[in-house]
Amino acid sequence: MLVYGKNVAKEFLKNPQNVKKVILQENFDDKEINSILENNIFKVEVLRKHEMDHLVDGLHQGIMLDIKDYQYRDLDQLLDENFVVILDHIEDPHNFGAIIRTCEAAGVSGIIITKDRQVGVTPTVVKTSAGAIYNMKISQVINLTSTISKLKDHGFWVVGTALEDSTDYREIDYTGKIALVIGNEGKGISRLVRESCDFVAKIPMYGTTNSLNASVASGIMIYEVVRNRK
Amino acid sequence: MLVYGKNVAKEFLKNPQNVKKVILQENFDDKEINSILENNIFKVEVLRKHEMDHLVDGLHQGIMLDIKDYQYRDLDQLLDENFVVILDHIEDPHNFGAIIRTCEAAGVSGIIITKDRQVGVTPTVVKTSAGAIYNMKISQVINLTSTISKLKDHGFWVVGTALEDSTDYREIDYTGKIALVIGNEGKGISRLVRESCDFVAKIPMYGTTNSLNASVASGIMIYEVVRNRK
Repeated sequence: MLVYGKNVAKEFLKNPQNVKKVILQENFDDKEINSILENNIFKVEVLRKHEMDHLVDGLHQGIMLDIKDYQYRDLDQLLDENFVVILDHIEDPHNFGAIIRTCEAAGVSGIIITKDRQVGVTPTVVKTSAGAIYNMKISQVINLTSTISKLKDHGFWVVGTALEDSTDYREIDYTGKIALVIGNEGKGISRLVRESCDFVAKIPMYGTTNSLNASVASGIMIYEVVRNRK
Repeated sequence: MLVYGKNVAKEFLKNPQNVKKVILQENFDDKEINSILENNIFKVEVLRKHEMDHLVDGLHQGIMLDIKDYQYRDLDQLLDENFVVILDHIEDPHNFGAIIRTCEAAGVSGIIITKDRQVGVTPTVVKTSAGAIYNMKISQVINLTSTISKLKDHGFWVVGTALEDSTDYREIDYTGKIALVIGNEGKGISRLVRESCDFVAKIPMYGTTNSLNASVASGIMIYEVVRNRK
């Protein structure tokens, strides 16, 4: 998988084991990156600008990295953890990437996504996660409701988010093992998933907009859980 | 300015005064949108799919709206408010749009941006804001430090965000008039702006990622201010 741009490259070069190859534009002159490249062993390929322009759609700034594909984890690896986030069909790669980044920063142990109707680990996701994805356990499951049952069997309290028939997010006790469900950008959390939640949390809204961006709502909820625990 | 897609269109059709023209693909058959169009007076133009494909880069789903350009407000309109957000050079349109949406949902009264090195109100910003931008006062200023001085003269407490030499965001008193400063995606808040802040808040990080996406960090900070006030 190709990722590109100076900031993204700097992030990924911190974990050389994930970098299969570095592609540089001839005469690439970023001192910081060149110094990293000189002090580590990377496979490097030098191309002309027009050759690099053909490889990706966006602005590569003279550097691309061919990185290892993400390795999904088995759900069993998450069952003994204390705080996981479940994505109920997030479609936008920017949202998925930002959520991964927030989870990693906040100390969430793992993320559960579905195999269908969910954006996978694409270059945009990797880029938006600012590399955090390689420090995060992500598990792909077929069925969310049976996964939630399994989590409950392992002592998790499941907290969903919705505007209606829900409790102010500041009034919920998050001290136990928590599985936080984040709903789809347009549709929110699905009916069956909602019915299997122990609590449904509401972030209060005071304007005419009646929803937040999915990654913003995730950030507010995740740090609310953290607040109750640390 | 052209915006497109069914969800975006539904949001904008709620405020007909902002819609200059509706462009539909022939045989457009979304019942909900067609019903809105039948019950209101809009200027409508019908085009073939290939003609619409030429107008925008993204997936238009058979509907585009030509909407009025955003009208920036004078800074003086924000001085008597109680909660404003200052963007210290946000470059990514998705971030700017998501921040506008969060501000509107949380009841923030206005947003202050700079004229230079700051993304303006582009179609992506309008789309990401989910239409919230038309309910939000946004003021463009030349110089942030002199603007902050003016805000302080009007009783605002200025709160920045940074990881170093800063106070846990949960330990700051946000009950007065608050101007919250959100830093640039890569560089954070600039030195002069930081020096003019009354408080500098830190969102604690527990992983290896040492920053959050700008719109996620904004959401956490904005709802922390709200928590202290409502």
